[in-house]
Amino acid sequence: MMGLSITSKILKSHLIEGNLYPGEQVLVSVDQTLGHDLTGIMAAQVLESVQPEKLSTEVSVFYCDHNTLAVSSENADDHMYLKTAAERYGVYFSKPGNGICHFLHCQRFAKPGKIMLGADSHTPTSGALGMLSIGSGGLTVAKGMLGEGFRMTTPKVINIRLTGRLNPGVAAKDIALEALRILTVKGGIGAIIEYTGEGVKTLSVPERATLANMSIELGATTGIFPSDEVTYEYMKAQEREDSWIELLPDEDAAYDRTIEIDLGELEPLVARPHMPDLVSTAREVSSVRPNSVFIGSCTNASYSDILKASKILKGHKVHKDIDLTVAPGSKQVLEHLIKDGVLADLVESGARILECACGPCIGIGQVPCANGIAVRTSNRNFPGRSGSQSASVYLASPETAAATAITGHITDVRDMMDAGILADCSEPVTYKIDDSSFIRPEDVSNPKDVKVIKGENISDLPMRGALRDRIEAVSVIKLGDNITTDDIIPGGSSILQFIANIPKFAEFTFCYTDETFVDRIKKLKNSVIIGGENYGQGSSREHAAMLPMYFGTEVVFAKSFARIHKENLINYGILPLVFKDKEDYDRIDMNDTFVIENVLLQADSGEVTVKVPGKGLEFKTALEVSPYDLKVLKEGGALNYLRNK
Amino acid sequence: MMGLSITSKILKSHLIEGNLYPGEQVLVSVDQTLGHDLTGIMAAQVLESVQPEKLSTEVSVFYCDHNTLAVSSENADDHMYLKTAAERYGVYFSKPGNGICHFLHCQRFAKPGKIMLGADSHTPTSGALGMLSIGSGGLTVAKGMLGEGFRMTTPKVINIRLTGRLNPGVAAKDIALEALRILTVKGGIGAIIEYTGEGVKTLSVPERATLANMSIELGATTGIFPSDEVTYEYMKAQEREDSWIELLPDEDAAYDRTIEIDLGELEPLVARPHMPDLVSTAREVSSVRPNSVFIGSCTNASYSDILKASKILKGHKVHKDIDLTVAPGSKQVLEHLIKDGVLADLVESGARILECACGPCIGIGQVPCANGIAVRTSNRNFPGRSGSQSASVYLASPETAAATAITGHITDVRDMMDAGILADCSEPVTYKIDDSSFIRPEDVSNPKDVKVIKGENISDLPMRGALRDRIEAVSVIKLGDNITTDDIIPGGSSILQFIANIPKFAEFTFCYTDETFVDRIKKLKNSVIIGGENYGQGSSREHAAMLPMYFGTEVVFAKSFARIHKENLINYGILPLVFKDKEDYDRIDMNDTFVIENVLLQADSGEVTVKVPGKGLEFKTALEVSPYDLKVLKEGGALNYLRNK
Repeated sequence: MMGLSITSKILKSHLIEGNLYPGEQVLVSVDQTLGHDLTGIMAAQVLESVQPEKLSTEVSVFYCDHNTLAVSSENADDHMYLKTAAERYGVYFSKPGNGICHFLHCQRFAKPGKIMLGADSHTPTSGALGMLSIGSGGLTVAKGMLGEGFRMTTPKVINIRLTGRLNPGVAAKDIALEALRILTVKGGIGAIIEYTGEGVKTLSVPERATLANMSIELGATTGIFPSDEVTYEYMKAQEREDSWIELLPDEDAAYDRTIEIDLGELEPLVARPHMPDLVSTAREVSSVRPNSVFIGSCTNASYSDILKASKILKGHKVHKDIDLTVAPGSKQVLEHLIKDGVLADLVESGARILECACGPCIGIGQVPCANGIAVRTSNRNFPGRSGSQSASVYLASPETAAATAITGHITDVRDMMDAGILADCSEPVTYKIDDSSFIRPEDVSNPKDVKVIKGENISDLPMRGALRDRIEAVSVIKLGDNITTDDIIPGGSSILQFIANIPKFAEFTFCYTDETFVDRIKKLKNSVIIGGENYGQGSSREHAAMLPMYFGTEVVFAKSFARIHKENLINYGILPLVFKDKEDYDRIDMNDTFVIENVLLQADSGEVTVKVPGKGLEFKTALEVSPYDLKVLKEGGALNYLRNK
Repeated sequence: MMGLSITSKILKSHLIEGNLYPGEQVLVSVDQTLGHDLTGIMAAQVLESVQPEKLSTEVSVFYCDHNTLAVSSENADDHMYLKTAAERYGVYFSKPGNGICHFLHCQRFAKPGKIMLGADSHTPTSGALGMLSIGSGGLTVAKGMLGEGFRMTTPKVINIRLTGRLNPGVAAKDIALEALRILTVKGGIGAIIEYTGEGVKTLSVPERATLANMSIELGATTGIFPSDEVTYEYMKAQEREDSWIELLPDEDAAYDRTIEIDLGELEPLVARPHMPDLVSTAREVSSVRPNSVFIGSCTNASYSDILKASKILKGHKVHKDIDLTVAPGSKQVLEHLIKDGVLADLVESGARILECACGPCIGIGQVPCANGIAVRTSNRNFPGRSGSQSASVYLASPETAAATAITGHITDVRDMMDAGILADCSEPVTYKIDDSSFIRPEDVSNPKDVKVIKGENISDLPMRGALRDRIEAVSVIKLGDNITTDDIIPGGSSILQFIANIPKFAEFTFCYTDETFVDRIKKLKNSVIIGGENYGQGSSREHAAMLPMYFGTEVVFAKSFARIHKENLINYGILPLVFKDKEDYDRIDMNDTFVIENVLLQADSGEVTVKVPGKGLEFKTALEVSPYDLKVLKEGGALNYLRNK
């Protein structure tokens, strides 16, 4: 018998139901959860509906980090709802300005060997500390908080084996981009990425966090690092060494695939518009002249990230045609930047300091101008994610971003200075610990007396009836491969302000992809959506399932589904059906009518035959779900399931 | 013959046409102008239309300080348009993040004895340095840039004579609020406020700026301070002492009215919702528990303002139910706050640091939640200005705001600590000078080669034909007293993102006051609006005139007009008619049809008879405009006038 990977060790220690054979569904226990001011609303609504006496998790946190601009009273209503629900039900509440959820969670809560469920696709960030940290929808996270555990398909484990050491000017971001170049955005589907090898020891926890974070861009369930001496030193610096345990893969751990990356061979890379796996070297695209540069996001907003950018900028001024914005990852990072004079250097160079929040990454502020070009250290460059459908976003490291801000064109920092000056940029030896921007459960004296304040803007959750035994529905849209949840329901503050108001928010469904979509789907009572490969990749935004459900979508046909979105479809009672023969995708079109007879029986069998009477066509699809998921689907979604229970 | 006031001295030295008798229109020359990313668009469009070889002003600046959140590509388009137009036509461009226009203008450009025209109602701020600084619409400002000078009604001069010295814990803001208590928001109409007396010498330039700034809240044309030793020291600290001249009123200067305020007698004050002249002491409203506190805005975001707030906050944490945001006035202020450890103290206390920009003051971010209560150091608390129609905003000093952020209820700082600790909070002795966030005309090598980039979102300006000799139009709305330009077209980033797209922006006209307004006015070809006293007070937003014009409004009847708005109505070819008998206001209603015969002749006479055939009613109105304004009105507005010229 071969040795165990880190992943296997953690899953084994948390197993409640099932066998850990790849492809089989298991139920595991959940130690921690996180949600934020977009996704947490949903979790809070579930808590309100269930009224639990006590949460089942060790730690659950709601973070206000997305809509911190508060461009409308709707945002502030959402924050007030989240805060009062947190106080009422024993959830930690992180006030706006405290920082980005993934950053703060690494700093203050993540523990090696634990399992966390987070209502955000970049939850894997905490994998930097050896915690299995899985992104999901708010409803699934709420189930974790309520002791329902987490049901997942046992993943494959892909080992990314790092050797060597990064040269100055080359960054953790470049490793992530190299992995994307090799594996593409689909390469990690159904797998967890485990980072191992001698190279890991050369990476700080924030550098590991950059890699763990972008594991989701590979399509993976999550990414995880060993918990080693470096982890210990980081947790000690956060005054949390008591929570440290060593967690290493066995020497002879079994992996489904191993990829080697020699850190010493890497160069500064960028991802070109509009997909994170369109990777070039920075030098190859040096003629690109952006209008704006952003350094920040949950991927690259650590102290050392920003320190490196400031070292490059020091003594220079931002190019007159560039707008440079910097958003530190957390209040802790900001306090160190101030204390050490880094912030002063940045401001002197002409950088604009934004709040410690997600911000531009998700189009909440700093939306590029029409046809604008932006270089950003964030993790996604999908069309429209920046808030502008015509913008082109290049992803790069803080080093490349800072160099670009000075020269006005995409720049490999080594071409403008001796990158050796970056060699000594490291994290603080001890961090300033101040949790006063969290409202902790123990800060609330009588939680049961807390009035949960729910602004008028926060609508009730849409519900659907139980699964119908005969489905007859019309295809409302036919889409290509790699459709993202940003395509289904875009980001940007003008849109996201309505996230808690389903009828208003729904008006933006597919608004950039097909502006006639909402008008058309409103005319249909029942509808299906046709997708290609990797349907629903990207953000965990469960509204990408909820809004079609709200409009009456009953089925999504696709060549394959992204994991979180498939979970969300099930949670909202939509059948995720995979073409058995992918060529059937080509045979069906928009406006076809689809008929499925004996839905309940067929669903049990896992094979669902679909008729297209208008075309005299019949094709087979697979419903690849566990018995539990099937129950949820039959009851019309998880909310029905939880309420009925 | 009596001596001259500061105002008279400056007007005299700039007089081109007319006599300086109160009530008479004069033409004066303009030395400086400013505009920003809301109002400057308009000015840039005029420049584009006229294509001047050279500007007539000594200094003209476009500041990006309002829509710096850039919540949509429209904002970024506006910035790009303003930047490229500035580079093309020789205007200074202040990049986003550099700070608030009025703040920066005081720091870097304002000169005693000069006249500035600014496309923003708070332009009077630069009166702190003895410059006559008058707010107006973008079109009027563009005329100033093009050498047309500025036509104004010779104002009365009200003297606010300050004696004594402020006690610690009492602030310049409290003087401004005391003046509002005495004079109300109408008390300064038709006048310039001149601050004199021994008390002036005890006030720093930023404190004077707070008072000059809020002169507009009194309804005044502007406010002005002497240029004295304190001014000299400030300008020296800004390395601008070469531009200093002494400018004092004559000892026996004549004033139309004099008000005395003994600074030593003042207490911390607040303005209650929803008008700046609803003044109480902080103690009288100490039971009010806000959800949010904002320290910043062009009124109160100086180094010493924020230093005082930080001294109060130091050693305390922001109350858990309060969200405290702080936005320094400029990059210069921010750099000093960082260097001196003030920013560190603020962040440690739990304050959120926003960008150096207008922000929450105008509802661009930090919009309160539904029925939210906010304490703000800004200058206006009109309904809806915060971006939420249901919010209640209290105006207060930074000291009161900081104390409130700690206790969670409105607090006179003297009730929670020894305010003596504030006594030594002063401005830096020398400021850090760095103008690199300005793009100066000399930074652009070939201005004529600059391509002005005008995003698709920026629509052409609406035009109207020449004044019709017979007007027949229906009243589309009847309003009460003190209607603000925020009522006519509200702020907030969701709305202001469309400011350069007239058809889209117009959809928000009166949206909070009467949501049926747009539907109703669209059904009318020609319309009139009925207002009460002080119609159009508040922001200089010329869209409050332009949008009704766009919809076909030809006349506004009112009991009285706010000065800037009246100018704007004229600029957009709308007749501003004042009831001769105010009781006629009560005799007319919405949906009445109004007929004016022989408009051109009647306009020449200054008395316009209006018939309401449906009521068998006839009433007289006054058209109180200069011969020049009459020409503009007859040609259908200033844009026609400039183009025809």
